[in-house]
Amino acid sequence: MAAKKSNSMAILIFLFLLCHINFFVVESANKIRARHLCKTLMFYFHDIIYNGENAKNATSAIVGAPAWGNFTKLGGKNHFGDLVIFDDPITLDNNLHSTPVGRAQGFYFYDKKEIFTSWLGFSFVFNSTEHKGSINFAGADPLMNKTRDISVIGGTGDFFMTRGIATLMTDAFEGEVYFRLRVDIKLYECW
Amino acid sequence: MAAKKSNSMAILIFLFLLCHINFFVVESANKIRARHLCKTLMFYFHDIIYNGENAKNATSAIVGAPAWGNFTKLGGKNHFGDLVIFDDPITLDNNLHSTPVGRAQGFYFYDKKEIFTSWLGFSFVFNSTEHKGSINFAGADPLMNKTRDISVIGGTGDFFMTRGIATLMTDAFEGEVYFRLRVDIKLYECW
Amino acid sequence: MAAKKSNSMAILIFLFLLCHINFFVVESANKIRARHLCKTLMFYFHDIIYNGENAKNATSAIVGAPAWGNFTKLGGKNHFGDLVIFDDPITLDNNLHSTPVGRAQGFYFYDKKEIFTSWLGFSFVFNSTEHKGSINFAGADPLMNKTRDISVIGGTGDFFMTRGIATLMTDAFEGEVYFRLRVDIKLYECW
Repeated sequence: MAAKKSNSMAILIFLFLLCHINFFVVESANKIRARHLCKTLMFYFHDIIYNGENAKNATSAIVGAPAWGNFTKLGGKNHFGDLVIFDDPITLDNNLHSTPVGRAQGFYFYDKKEIFTSWLGFSFVFNSTEHKGSINFAGADPLMNKTRDISVIGGTGDFFMTRGIATLMTDAFEGEVYFRLRVDIKLYECW
Repeated sequence: MAAKKSNSMAILIFLFLLCHINFFVVESANKIRARHLCKTLMFYFHDIIYNGENAKNATSAIVGAPAWGNFTKLGGKNHFGDLVIFDDPITLDNNLHSTPVGRAQGFYFYDKKEIFTSWLGFSFVFNSTEHKGSINFAGADPLMNKTRDISVIGGTGDFFMTRGIATLMTDAFEGEVYFRLRVDIKLYECW
Repeated sequence: MAAKKSNSMAILIFLFLLCHINFFVVESANKIRARHLCKTLMFYFHDIIYNGENAKNATSAIVGAPAWGNFTKLGGKNHFGDLVIFDDPITLDNNLHSTPVGRAQGFYFYDKKEIFTSWLGFSFVFNSTEHKGSINFAGADPLMNKTRDISVIGGTGDFFMTRGIATLMTDAFEGEVYFRLRVDIKLYECW
C-alpha cells in the first residue's frame, strides 16, 4: 500500500514537472512578445533650417511650400504646407556641439493653419561602436504640447523589426532657424 | 481500495485544473496577439484643396508639383507628381458640416500618369472624450477602385502600438476641389 | 492490484495527452509569431527621372527642391533636398523591358549634403495571378553602401499585416536619369 502511494506521488511529480516545462514554453513565447517595455533610449537632435544665408551650418531646407510660401523663410498661416528635408545631428546631451552619435534623416511639414502642428517621417541612422542600424519613425507632432507621441514603425540592424513609441519634447526653439528635440524612445517589440 | 480510488481521482482533478490554468495563460497570450479583428472604427474625412480663391474654407494645399505643374490647380497627366498637405476634419457621418471628432493630418500625392492613383501618409488625431491619441496610416491608394486597403502602421494613446488595415472608399468627389473618403479601420493588433 | 496499476497508467496517459494538446496550442501560437523568416521575395525596379526631354519614358519627376534647386535636373550638394515621386515598373529580372509584375509607387528624396543618401516611402503594388495586394516600405537608404536595409511596415491583400525588412542594392546607375534597384524582401511576420 505504501509502495502504491509513492507510485502515485511519482506520477504527480512527473506531471507537475511536465506542466512546468509547458509553463516555461509559454513564458518564453511571451518574452518575445511581451507587452512590457523591452528597451529605452534617449537622444537629442538639432535642426538648423536654411534661410538663404546659413548654407554652411544649415542641416535642413524647405523643399515644398504652398502658393503663398517661399523657400528661404517659413511662411504665414503657422507655416501651413511648408515641407522640410533634414539631416540633423543626434547627440546624447542637449549641446549642439557634442560629438554626434548618429543622424536624424527625413522630412517634416507644418500642417495646420490655426496653430503650429507638424507631421514627421524620419530615421535615426546609427553607425558607431554603440549602435549600428536604424530606427524608423512616423506620426503627427502637435508641437505646442509639452510632450507628444509618434510611432516607431520599424528598424534595422541592432533595431531589427522593432516597434514602439517615441515621446518628443521641444527642448529649445530659437526664432525660426533652430530647434532641438528631445526624443524618448520606448520599444515594446524587440527581436 | 475505495480510498485509493478517490485519492487517484483527486490527483486527476488537481492536474486537470493545473493544465487548465496553463490553458488560460496560453489563451491570454493569444488574446494579445490574436489573428482576429480586435477593433473596428468607421469615419469620414473631408478634403477641400486650395485653388487660389478659397483660402477661408480650404483644408489642404498643393506644396509640390513637377516642372509642368502649378500650386493652385491640380496638373495634367492625371495630376502626376502633385503633392498635397492636409488638415482635414473627421466626422462620424458623411456631412461636411457635422461636428468634427478629430483631424486627418498628413500628405498625399498623385503618382501615375495614365490613371488617377495616389499614395498617402497621414494620422487620425483624436482629442475628445471618446478617443484620445492617434492612428498612423501609410500606403498606395489606387483611387479608381471602389475599395482599396492601406496599412495602419502604428498608434499612440488609446491606439497605443496598434496595427491593422484601413479600407478607403471615395464617398464623394466634386470637381477637383472637394472629396470625401469613408475609412473603415480594422485593427488586428490591440495592446 | 494489477487493475490499480493499469488505472494509474490510464490517468498518466490521459494527462500526458492533455499536456500534449496544450503543447500544440502553444506551438501554433508560436508559429504565427515565429522569429524566423516566413517569406522571401526578390524583385528589381527601374526609375527614369523626367529631365525635360524624356516625358514619354520618364517614370518619375522632381516635385520638390530647395531654394538652389530646379525641377528638371537633380541639384548640387549631392542633390540634397530634391524630392522625387515615382511610378516605376517592377520586374523579376534586371531587364527594364521585361514584362512588369507590378509597380513601385511612392517617393524618395536626397537628404545629405556631403554624400549621396536618400530616404524612401513607397509601396509595391501587385495585381497579377501571382500576387495581389501591396507591400509598404519606409526607411533611410545610404545609397553609397553596397547593401542597405529598410523596413517593411505593413501590407494588404496577399501580404496582409506583414512586417520585415528589405535589402536594397543598386544594380545599375546611368548618369542621373536611370537607376535600377534590386530588392530582397525578407518577411518575418506573415498572417
